[in-house]
Amino acid sequence: MQIARVRGTVVSTHKARSLTGVKLLLLQFIDAEGQLLPKYEVAGDTVGAGIDEWVLVSRGGAARIDDGYNNRPLDAMVIGIIDTVTVDNRQLYSKKGENRG
Amino acid sequence: MQIARVRGTVVSTHKARSLTGVKLLLLQFIDAEGQLLPKYEVAGDTVGAGIDEWVLVSRGGAARIDDGYNNRPLDAMVIGIIDTVTVDNRQLYSKKGENRG
Amino acid sequence: MQIARVRGTVVSTHKARSLTGVKLLLLQFIDAEGQLLPKYEVAGDTVGAGIDEWVLVSRGGAARIDDGYNNRPLDAMVIGIIDTVTVDNRQLYSKKGENRG
Amino acid sequence: MQIARVRGTVVSTHKARSLTGVKLLLLQFIDAEGQLLPKYEVAGDTVGAGIDEWVLVSRGGAARIDDGYNNRPLDAMVIGIIDTVTVDNRQLYSKKGENRG
Amino acid sequence: MQIARVRGTVVSTHKARSLTGVKLLLLQFIDAEGQLLPKYEVAGDTVGAGIDEWVLVSRGGAARIDDGYNNRPLDAMVIGIIDTVTVDNRQLYSKKGENRG
Repeated sequence: MQIARVRGTVVSTHKARSLTGVKLLLLQFIDAEGQLLPKYEVAGDTVGAGIDEWVLVSRGGAARIDDGYNNRPLDAMVIGIIDTVTVDNRQLYSKKGENRG
Repeated sequence: MQIARVRGTVVSTHKARSLTGVKLLLLQFIDAEGQLLPKYEVAGDTVGAGIDEWVLVSRGGAARIDDGYNNRPLDAMVIGIIDTVTVDNRQLYSKKGENRG
Repeated sequence: MQIARVRGTVVSTHKARSLTGVKLLLLQFIDAEGQLLPKYEVAGDTVGAGIDEWVLVSRGGAARIDDGYNNRPLDAMVIGIIDTVTVDNRQLYSKKGENRG
Repeated sequence: MQIARVRGTVVSTHKARSLTGVKLLLLQFIDAEGQLLPKYEVAGDTVGAGIDEWVLVSRGGAARIDDGYNNRPLDAMVIGIIDTVTVDNRQLYSKKGENRG
Repeated sequence: MQIARVRGTVVSTHKARSLTGVKLLLLQFIDAEGQLLPKYEVAGDTVGAGIDEWVLVSRGGAARIDDGYNNRPLDAMVIGIIDTVTVDNRQLYSKKGENRG
C-alpha cells in the first residue's frame, strides 16, 4: 500500500452503473519522509476519510475485495485512515499532531 | 483511477475476436494540477465519452468487471465522464466551464 | 493498452511446458506522438502481427483471457493490429501510409 | 519480488474491518547493489520481520494468496525474511553480517 | 514479459510456508539493445536457469499459473531460458554466442 493525503473529490454522474453510490477521493501520494509527491490516485472510499487526512491506499484487485465491491470497476481504494507512521523509532506522522517531519 | 482527457481513437480490424464492437479511445493522462502528461492509455469505452472530455480510467482487472467485458482482453476502461474535480475546496475542473486551472 | 511496434522475436526452447506453440514477439512502445520509446515488452501473439506493424498490447491478466490462454504464464499479449490512430482529428498513423507524424 | 528493509510501522484504527489483526510494516526498497532507494511500500506481515531486517515483498494478488488473507484488501505482503543475497558469486548481504556491500 | 539476466540467488529460511522448495533467482533486467538496466526482480524458477543466462520473466498473476504454483505468494517467475533475441532481422543475443550487441 502507499501513504497518501486526501486532497479533494471527483464527481461523475455519467459513469458505469455499478459505481452508483461510490464516493471518489483525489489522493496525493506521500514519500517516506512525509513530503507530498506529484503522483496522485482517484480512489473509492469506504472508511469516510476527510480532507487532509493521511490514508492507506490499496491498488489493483485489492480495491474489489471488500463486500459490495467485487463487481465495481475500481482499481484503487482507501482501506484505512492512518493514526501514526513510525520510521526508525521516530514518529513521522500522528493524526493528532499532524506531520512532525 | 487516473484522470485523463480523450484525445482520439484507435481502429483495429484484425484483432482478438472478443474485441468486436469495443470502441477504443486514446486517452492522455492529466496531473493533479490539470496539466496534460506525456503518458497515454488506449482504453475501452462504455460510457460514450467524447473528444476533449475528462474521464476516469481504471486499469488492470477492473477493465473486465462490467457485464459483457469479463472475457475481453482489455487492461484499461473508461468508467466515467468527469463533471468536476475539486482540490483543496477549489474547483480544478468543471465539465461546463472546462479547465479553470 | 499501449501502442507498440513489432521489432523482432524471442525464441526459447527450454520453457514452461504450457508455453509450447506460443509465438513471442519483441514489441517497442510508441508514445502519443508516434515516436519509439526505449521501453519494450515481449508478448504472445495470436493475431499474426508482422515486423514493423503497429499493434495494441494488453498486459496483466488480460493476456490470459482468450480461449486457450487461461493456463499459460503470459503477462502481455498482442490483441490487435492497428489500422489507424487518430489524435485531435489528425491521423497520426495509418497502416497503409505508415507513420505520418 | 523486490528486496526491502523494514523501516517502521503504520497504525490505523479506522480501517476496513477485514484488516483487523494485520500488522503493517513500512518497507524501503533496496537496489541490486544493496543501496536504499527512495521507494517504499506499506505491507502486511505474517513472518514477524523486525526493524532493519531485509525482506522479500510480493505485490498485487500475491498479497492475498496465503490462508486467511484471501479476503483482505492488501496489495503488498512480506513473504520472507532474507538470509543471504548472492550476486555474481559474491555475498551482497547476510543476515548475520548485515550488508557487506 | 521482460528479458533479464540471472545474476544470483536469494535465500530465505523464515518465510511463508507455501514457498518451501521454491528456488529464488535475482534477475537483472535488460533493455532492447541488450544492455543491463539498474532494475531487478527476485523471481521463482521452474526451468532451471543458470547464472548469466538470459531468461524471460513474467510478473503478476502469471507467476501463479503453472501447476503447483497457484497457492504460492509469488509475483514474478522465470518462464523460459532464451535461445535467441532477434531485432530488425539482426541477432541481438544467442545463447551459444552470448550477447553480440
